Amino acid sequence: MIDGVQAEYTRIPHADNSLYKYPDTIDDDVAVMLSDILPTGHEIGVQYGNVKPGDAIAIVGAGPVGMSVLLTSQFYSPSTIIMVDMDENRLELAKTLGATHTVNSAVENAEEAIKKIAGEEGVDVAIEAVGIPPTWDICQKIVKPGGHLANVGVHGVKVDFEIQKLWIKNLTITTGLVNTNTTPMLLKATATNKLPLKSLITHHYKLDQIEEAYQVFLNGAKEKAMKIIIEVN
Amino acid sequence: MIDGVQAEYTRIPHADNSLYKYPDTIDDDVAVMLSDILPTGHEIGVQYGNVKPGDAIAIVGAGPVGMSVLLTSQFYSPSTIIMVDMDENRLELAKTLGATHTVNSAVENAEEAIKKIAGEEGVDVAIEAVGIPPTWDICQKIVKPGGHLANVGVHGVKVDFEIQKLWIKNLTITTGLVNTNTTPMLLKATATNKLPLKSLITHHYKLDQIEEAYQVFLNGAKEKAMKIIIEVN
Repeated sequence: MIDGVQAEYTRIPHADNSLYKYPDTIDDDVAVMLSDILPTGHEIGVQYGNVKPGDAIAIVGAGPVGMSVLLTSQFYSPSTIIMVDMDENRLELAKTLGATHTVNSAVENAEEAIKKIAGEEGVDVAIEAVGIPPTWDICQKIVKPGGHLANVGVHGVKVDFEIQKLWIKNLTITTGLVNTNTTPMLLKATATNKLPLKSLITHHYKLDQIEEAYQVFLNGAKEKAMKIIIEVN
Repeated sequence: MIDGVQAEYTRIPHADNSLYKYPDTIDDDVAVMLSDILPTGHEIGVQYGNVKPGDAIAIVGAGPVGMSVLLTSQFYSPSTIIMVDMDENRLELAKTLGATHTVNSAVENAEEAIKKIAGEEGVDVAIEAVGIPPTWDICQKIVKPGGHLANVGVHGVKVDFEIQKLWIKNLTITTGLVNTNTTPMLLKATATNKLPLKSLITHHYKLDQIEEAYQVFLNGAKEKAMKIIIEVN
């Protein structure tokens, strides 16, 4: 509840409770990825989703948080990682970051495409990384009996939960806001080059170009924007 | 997918995979409670709901399965057990079986009443044991941040999931059909009188009175019926 930190100086109340020191071997730009998106993807997507070795997982949404899920899910060795999005550029990037399959939900039926890849029962873990009813709906349709549905997306409206079909499926559905309890582990993994976080950064702007930066961010698909770094000096 | 077992003899395919021998110290009537309702309440309600010592829990629905949740939840020592139903008789029975509080949702606002008991944040665990949208709705409104919502009820229609409010609450929501993997433990607990299962049995009928028995069951509230035993001979 403070007025943002896109500024040269910001006073953060009780900041000692949430600061981590990062080693010189971590690039400043990369460290920005660790502040929020990486722990969000790891904790709320991968850990709450209980991704296990050999699992088939689907990540619905290839934005920065979905990409963070993609990167950190690989710590736990799933066999099949299906990335779903409507932006072909993002899907191409996902392939270079470890997605074994991609589904463009703008041009094909996501449920059918995912079940063709993972089998008729669906995936072990479905991770919602957008925050709108259609992507929630894909997730509830593709999770297999005994599976996990981890919601990472920030939603603005309610969704239909098809409990009349899902009550019998022994599902675990989770929601959450990032805890950052895994930040120390993610720092270690980043410092030892376990995570190609630089690939998520597509643009750099100076602070006085911030309005232009927001325009690029708003037109992410056209501008091929993923994460944008604002430099103070 | 066989034609029921309310009969003198029934052929059960592969029955060896699902049979347990119960000791002579367990009454035949009581053993019937162990076939389905008790493991359902224990596994899908209490275990999936992760009931822990000191927890405040709410059980929405005081039918036989809700009562099974009530009885087996006490294995794990919750501090506050709120039973919710519209039938005052059932709520009275719940009090004798360990409910610390009861809420009659026919005469008061369940959400408000539960929060008055458990605090404004709600309960650690909300267990849905009915299977209709209004009882689901009570559960999603009363579960506290970091809490569990275990759905036990069999639903016929979809429900509204208020994910626009709940995405941030780090909830775990589970669904499921009974596994019976805890039946051996429940048999031991029953054989050593840890569970007053006789209290759930309100009526006895002979097989040739089964139509009358179903009428009583259909008018459960008026007839003060909980579980009805059908005797073959």
